[in-house]
Amino acid sequence: MLSSTFSRLTNPASMASIARSRRYARRWLLGLASMSSVPSSLAKDPSRSSIGSASSYLSNVSNFKIIESTLRGKGRAKKIEIAKALDDFGVDYLELTSPAASTQSFNDCKAIVGLGLKAKILTHVRCHMDDAKLAVETGVDGLDVVIGTSSFLREFSHGKDMQYIIDTATEVIQYIKGEGLEVRFSSEDSFRSDIVDLLNLYRAVDKLGVNRVGIADTVGCASPDQVAELVRTLRGIVSCDIECHFHNDTGCAIANAYAALQNGATHVDTSVLGIGERNGIPSLGGFIARMYASDKESVKAKYKLEKLREIENIVADAVGVSVPFNNPVTGYCAFTHKAGIHAKAILNNPSTYEILRPEDFGMTRYVAIGHRLTGWNAVKNRVDQLGLPLTDVDCKQITNKIKNLADIRPLSLDDVDKLLRRYGEAKVEDSHHAILEAIDTPDQITQW
Amino acid sequence: MLSSTFSRLTNPASMASIARSRRYARRWLLGLASMSSVPSSLAKDPSRSSIGSASSYLSNVSNFKIIESTLRGKGRAKKIEIAKALDDFGVDYLELTSPAASTQSFNDCKAIVGLGLKAKILTHVRCHMDDAKLAVETGVDGLDVVIGTSSFLREFSHGKDMQYIIDTATEVIQYIKGEGLEVRFSSEDSFRSDIVDLLNLYRAVDKLGVNRVGIADTVGCASPDQVAELVRTLRGIVSCDIECHFHNDTGCAIANAYAALQNGATHVDTSVLGIGERNGIPSLGGFIARMYASDKESVKAKYKLEKLREIENIVADAVGVSVPFNNPVTGYCAFTHKAGIHAKAILNNPSTYEILRPEDFGMTRYVAIGHRLTGWNAVKNRVDQLGLPLTDVDCKQITNKIKNLADIRPLSLDDVDKLLRRYGEAKVEDSHHAILEAIDTPDQITQW
Repeated sequence: MLSSTFSRLTNPASMASIARSRRYARRWLLGLASMSSVPSSLAKDPSRSSIGSASSYLSNVSNFKIIESTLRGKGRAKKIEIAKALDDFGVDYLELTSPAASTQSFNDCKAIVGLGLKAKILTHVRCHMDDAKLAVETGVDGLDVVIGTSSFLREFSHGKDMQYIIDTATEVIQYIKGEGLEVRFSSEDSFRSDIVDLLNLYRAVDKLGVNRVGIADTVGCASPDQVAELVRTLRGIVSCDIECHFHNDTGCAIANAYAALQNGATHVDTSVLGIGERNGIPSLGGFIARMYASDKESVKAKYKLEKLREIENIVADAVGVSVPFNNPVTGYCAFTHKAGIHAKAILNNPSTYEILRPEDFGMTRYVAIGHRLTGWNAVKNRVDQLGLPLTDVDCKQITNKIKNLADIRPLSLDDVDKLLRRYGEAKVEDSHHAILEAIDTPDQITQW
Repeated sequence: MLSSTFSRLTNPASMASIARSRRYARRWLLGLASMSSVPSSLAKDPSRSSIGSASSYLSNVSNFKIIESTLRGKGRAKKIEIAKALDDFGVDYLELTSPAASTQSFNDCKAIVGLGLKAKILTHVRCHMDDAKLAVETGVDGLDVVIGTSSFLREFSHGKDMQYIIDTATEVIQYIKGEGLEVRFSSEDSFRSDIVDLLNLYRAVDKLGVNRVGIADTVGCASPDQVAELVRTLRGIVSCDIECHFHNDTGCAIANAYAALQNGATHVDTSVLGIGERNGIPSLGGFIARMYASDKESVKAKYKLEKLREIENIVADAVGVSVPFNNPVTGYCAFTHKAGIHAKAILNNPSTYEILRPEDFGMTRYVAIGHRLTGWNAVKNRVDQLGLPLTDVDCKQITNKIKNLADIRPLSLDDVDKLLRRYGEAKVEDSHHAILEAIDTPDQITQW
């Protein structure tokens, strides 16, 4: 079985190989130290999960780098605007289209390099000397080199065999290192590649001194358990960093990135709104939401979360799409609560139904109350916000009316406020029951 | 450590408890049989991943039920239209809003029950006798009963302690079973609940004979590894089915559903486009894409995949949203390929960059060629489709021109076709080089 082969690969031989690396030996000790403190920190922070939240010495969930690849494929002016916004947000790297793609790609690359951003500038190039030389000319900080390794790609794409791949990789990597630049070497379609070929290749380029090896789920077929196995195996074979690139064809891109970090990967490729080939890659916002849920403080310390919405709007505008309604950070459903039993608990303690604090993302929480699943606790909360002197009995009667009206169509917050205020006024004259009885449709309120 | 506690719980005591259940003993044997056949089936189907694709005797990835909850919260006519479409698609269950929510919810429930669909009709109710009785009156096939169990919810929502929960659950479950209906009992916010309380509760309701226990990641905090641990532990403690409900606040809902099935869960809650509280739950389309990637044949045999697009359009229209551009099945990026090196391989063999076959989903593949990352293979493919007698050298020259023009703005397929046809005509008079030289902007082609 492949999976049992993997288990054998990771234990105990690869453990020993990890321990040999000073960096991981140190992290092992840190891991042991942090493990013993988990129960008390859990007790202190009840918003954290109580299930399986143990940290592992392999895990980089509190210590990862973001390689932002949104800039692969936009116009110059927008590229610069987005690059500055992402740099301000705090991403570690910006990855650009290969300068070999077109003259403008080359010039855009030089322009972004010239901005003098804090983020390192990378470009994504094929494993060819010509492409590598062109990339070096632009002044980038590093090259993300990619080559297809799956049997599919060997047959149908570049048609090269594995020894040729290793020879070419060696030439390209030595050239880039000779130029003093950072170099990542990635396979393509890693999850459908021959595992022995793949590991041979990674070990060879690790020995050549690459900064990172990369795995890429080019077709989006991988699941988190497969990612965990491959990255854990790879972690035992190379001593360099590990970068991951996942596609979202089966809805697992963010979960795969997280599984990779948990098992020793260090760098994750993202793009704003997840824009990329087919269904795209992990969205910057969704990935940040995942990491925030795992280690809120380190994410808040490192990234300006309140800038996410603006960045997403810039990119959505640049490519002519809308921010998806169910986008984890800034979609319009993100911080809206609706159901009656939820609303009550949310009003008492937001952590009850929220793992993300809207304030941290420069957003506000909204509890919808004008729908037929509303509850009187939510209505009472609004009554209190409006400063109306109504009793619990009043609130329950109004809630029943709202539920009946919302069976026809949901009421806007304006409509609900109108109803509450008019009821409050009528109560002074003891005509509040008459007010409720006179209303049969939401339109009557809207037309007030 | 919680995680090591979990490991101890699952091995070997819980293994023995699983083996005691006749159903799981049978599956264990089937699992062993299928495990030995994996390598040969992998060899036969190269589109399957070669990494960690071993099946487990716990896994239900080829044998799961979909509980579709889109109908929780729509108007009557739309509910009926959507219910019929989902039934035709082949979902196993339709879950409706609690009849206790409003008079219309009650009547809608009766109307859907009256349709006589193949799918079983469930309603989602709080663990109260009043709600359960109202639900039974509607004629549904089963009740999905839910109660909050996390310390958050015990304190801030219903304020009940665990013994009270077990007593109430017992009364409600015995009533529903007495009525001859299917019953699921679910905790809420399961991943932040006390693990011992949770397991006690599940064991108690399993002994009462519930059809399913449910776990719910109500706040969307869980990651696939936590789901795997909890479900695997639960699988060793109850002999009934296991249903899962995941929210997408941190982008892991689909991956979590998959992890649950891999570890012994049997039923997954979905909604069309993932619509639900905050960022919603696993989208039906995205979940189907994940399962299709794991076991294409069983998914194609069970569900009418070509109906997905129509269902998504109906629901998007009903709730006034657009289908997200990066939706795994019907978003407009889903089957569009762009990059030059990708396009070449796609044209040679679609499996190279596609894990989902567009034809299976009633869609078509589109390789974009009018952009600056285009490649001459893609252009040549279009030349062949148009039946133009151009050489490879011609195609390479045209490709360079397209790349330069697309630096200004991307060309539509119409524009590319115009360029190719005019070049073809000009070649007869040997004026094709002049044609290319005369074009400086994409607008010139558009205006031809």
